[in-house]
Amino acid sequence: MKRTSRDIRTANRYEVLRQIIATSPTSRQELAAATGLSLATVATLVGELLDLGMITEVGFEDSAGGRPRGLVAVNASGGALIGVDIAETYVHVELFDLALNVLARADEDMRPGESRPEQVVSHVAAAVGSVVAQAGIEGARVLGVGVSVPGQVDRDTGISEYAPNWDWHDVPLLDLLAEHIAYPLYLDNPLRACAVAELWFGAARGRGDAVVVNLGTGVGAGLVLGGGLHRGVSNSAGEWGHTTLVLDGRLCHCGNHGCVETYVGAPGIMQHLRELSPGSTLLHPEDQTATIDALAHAVTANDPVAVKVVRDTARYLAAGIADLVNLFNPEVVVLSSWVAATLGEPLLAEVREAVARHALRRPLAATEIVLSPIPTDPVSLGAATFALEGALQSVGQRTARRTAPARSRTAPPS
Amino acid sequence: MKRTSRDIRTANRYEVLRQIIATSPTSRQELAAATGLSLATVATLVGELLDLGMITEVGFEDSAGGRPRGLVAVNASGGALIGVDIAETYVHVELFDLALNVLARADEDMRPGESRPEQVVSHVAAAVGSVVAQAGIEGARVLGVGVSVPGQVDRDTGISEYAPNWDWHDVPLLDLLAEHIAYPLYLDNPLRACAVAELWFGAARGRGDAVVVNLGTGVGAGLVLGGGLHRGVSNSAGEWGHTTLVLDGRLCHCGNHGCVETYVGAPGIMQHLRELSPGSTLLHPEDQTATIDALAHAVTANDPVAVKVVRDTARYLAAGIADLVNLFNPEVVVLSSWVAATLGEPLLAEVREAVARHALRRPLAATEIVLSPIPTDPVSLGAATFALEGALQSVGQRTARRTAPARSRTAPPS
Ligand SMILES: [Zn+2]
Ligand SMILES: [Zn+2]
Repeated sequence: MKRTSRDIRTANRYEVLRQIIATSPTSRQELAAATGLSLATVATLVGELLDLGMITEVGFEDSAGGRPRGLVAVNASGGALIGVDIAETYVHVELFDLALNVLARADEDMRPGESRPEQVVSHVAAAVGSVVAQAGIEGARVLGVGVSVPGQVDRDTGISEYAPNWDWHDVPLLDLLAEHIAYPLYLDNPLRACAVAELWFGAARGRGDAVVVNLGTGVGAGLVLGGGLHRGVSNSAGEWGHTTLVLDGRLCHCGNHGCVETYVGAPGIMQHLRELSPGSTLLHPEDQTATIDALAHAVTANDPVAVKVVRDTARYLAAGIADLVNLFNPEVVVLSSWVAATLGEPLLAEVREAVARHALRRPLAATEIVLSPIPTDPVSLGAATFALEGALQSVGQRTARRTAPARSRTAPPS
Repeated sequence: MKRTSRDIRTANRYEVLRQIIATSPTSRQELAAATGLSLATVATLVGELLDLGMITEVGFEDSAGGRPRGLVAVNASGGALIGVDIAETYVHVELFDLALNVLARADEDMRPGESRPEQVVSHVAAAVGSVVAQAGIEGARVLGVGVSVPGQVDRDTGISEYAPNWDWHDVPLLDLLAEHIAYPLYLDNPLRACAVAELWFGAARGRGDAVVVNLGTGVGAGLVLGGGLHRGVSNSAGEWGHTTLVLDGRLCHCGNHGCVETYVGAPGIMQHLRELSPGSTLLHPEDQTATIDALAHAVTANDPVAVKVVRDTARYLAAGIADLVNLFNPEVVVLSSWVAATLGEPLLAEVREAVARHALRRPLAATEIVLSPIPTDPVSLGAATFALEGALQSVGQRTARRTAPARSRTAPPS
């Protein structure tokens, strides 16, 4: 999308709060130096954040000979944020304070066959209720709930346009959630949740151009370009999982053949293991997590089949990542989500070596490839960050913070 | 790269001049409405452009009942811009006024084997001298010369890092040119030249996200994201020609196998024709242009071999374009450069149909695929635009317009 001056003001507000969270306590002068914004702009934005109660004044530091500088810090207890990670077999929810510390967690398992939107929604509502109760906070302090659902999402209307796990088409997910959840709601998908988590708290912080490669059941790329999330004109950018790696190759659920996802998504890795060693004890036919865990352990033990599966997966992955390096010329490529976390360093080492064989010299020299440094679930952290961004975006659009949140139908409990 | 407030000011300056060139004469009020900038910002930027002599005041329009509004228009004779398109067999140079009308053209053919940097530079110098002489303008009025050279370019140092046509490595092209040419010089490659031409004057104008697919001897994609050119961290984004379409496919000169370029670049199309019909009269083994011209004519006459070559090329192209649609989710994909212009509508029709089979529904629905509407050589137009952007970027950085241009060693003749 074309950036307007309001987009730029919002981006600056994000940047200043991001910096305060990273370096609390800090002064307006340090913030201006770190962000490249003028001191006057920083002072205005800091004033807005103080008014919102998101940050507080915490005293002064001496500046050699000059006037003492006021210090601000994030006000961790100034509000709570909830992040919801809807995956195909579970719902994972975390409640954060404003410093993005986890205060409570809840998990709901979904049984095979539990795929109707109403079933998923009731799991989400139960888990959200649970984290609020566990944390013992007032409902009025919940600034919002970010919800990540796989597939293609219209974030403006809150509709899940296509969720491949359950073959959902045009499900009005946010409206269904709003029947149970009274806080402001924000819908997006795991690609963008992981990207925004890296941008605020991980390997993309302070970077202009970064690609967050998401390796799970589905795969895709979250794009950080020009210091912000690139969404595309209809919020569906980053569908790297459905770019063609092998013309006329494996059939993909999207209808195309030879998509990256069919080779490097967890089901694709399992298919490769099955083809290489049909009776392998590593294979848990109905359980992706158990299979990838078993592969990771077997690689550490130098099991030849496991080593070959990881090496071949890395080879496919590297051809696809080299495409991203050649197209975007990013500073960093981050491997995120559960398959990347589980296969870890052995996968990373093979990927780095193979990308160097595929990518062009100049963009390759400018890029590092790393594992996500985020220690917890990046999807729920990123989803909570969408709620934080939503609260920041609405600054100045409403008279009081709790009035008329975009997506909630009733006033929150207090 | 991360955008600083200075980048944003520069982008706003581009936007206002772009709008003035498109709609002269126009008022500050209309400019504010069209760009989304505040009237105060527009007034400041218009003032700068007036000071530079790039635009002039041209009277007033009545606004119903209110104060008459001052009108401004581009000052076509306020300066000249030169665009240089270095291709593998020729150098094409155009001189433009500030409304980007062509005032003079010059071509130099390069014989096979003429591939040393000094030989290419002397052709460029001769052609630049020719257009200045033909146009009969004072050297002092030349604001700059934009130079496009294929391959990977370090625009800050003016070095051609890798030019595949001639196997150039780390050629200090701008320094060599500056020994002959006294005007400010700006180096980049045809991908970005075509993209900036579309952004200022073509199908990407006013669009947030656009991909300009360049089909020539080499292929690549110029990326317009968030209303500006996406260059990547080391100015090498957009190397779509070297993304993998067929894993382990045709060997590419970049060292990778199965690159898009090996299938849809002019030599790849010729290879396909040779394989389908070894003795075809359409094939001019040493002449890409003649072969693609012959193909285009034969398709119009429904020649079955030509129809099949274009259809198969469109199929490869469409798989690669669907990757761009799924990754970037752009508003428009523009087919540019000489192969696209020559094969024209028959290629476009096949491509549109095949992209619809490969791309995801949501990003596909948001994208149109068009041929470049630019009637002249987009590379020299885009290269001249780099010179225009360079002149706009340096506003406020130097006291007078002609002082200390970044890349010229001596004062220009006057
Ligand atoms: Zn697919
Ligand atoms: Zn290649």
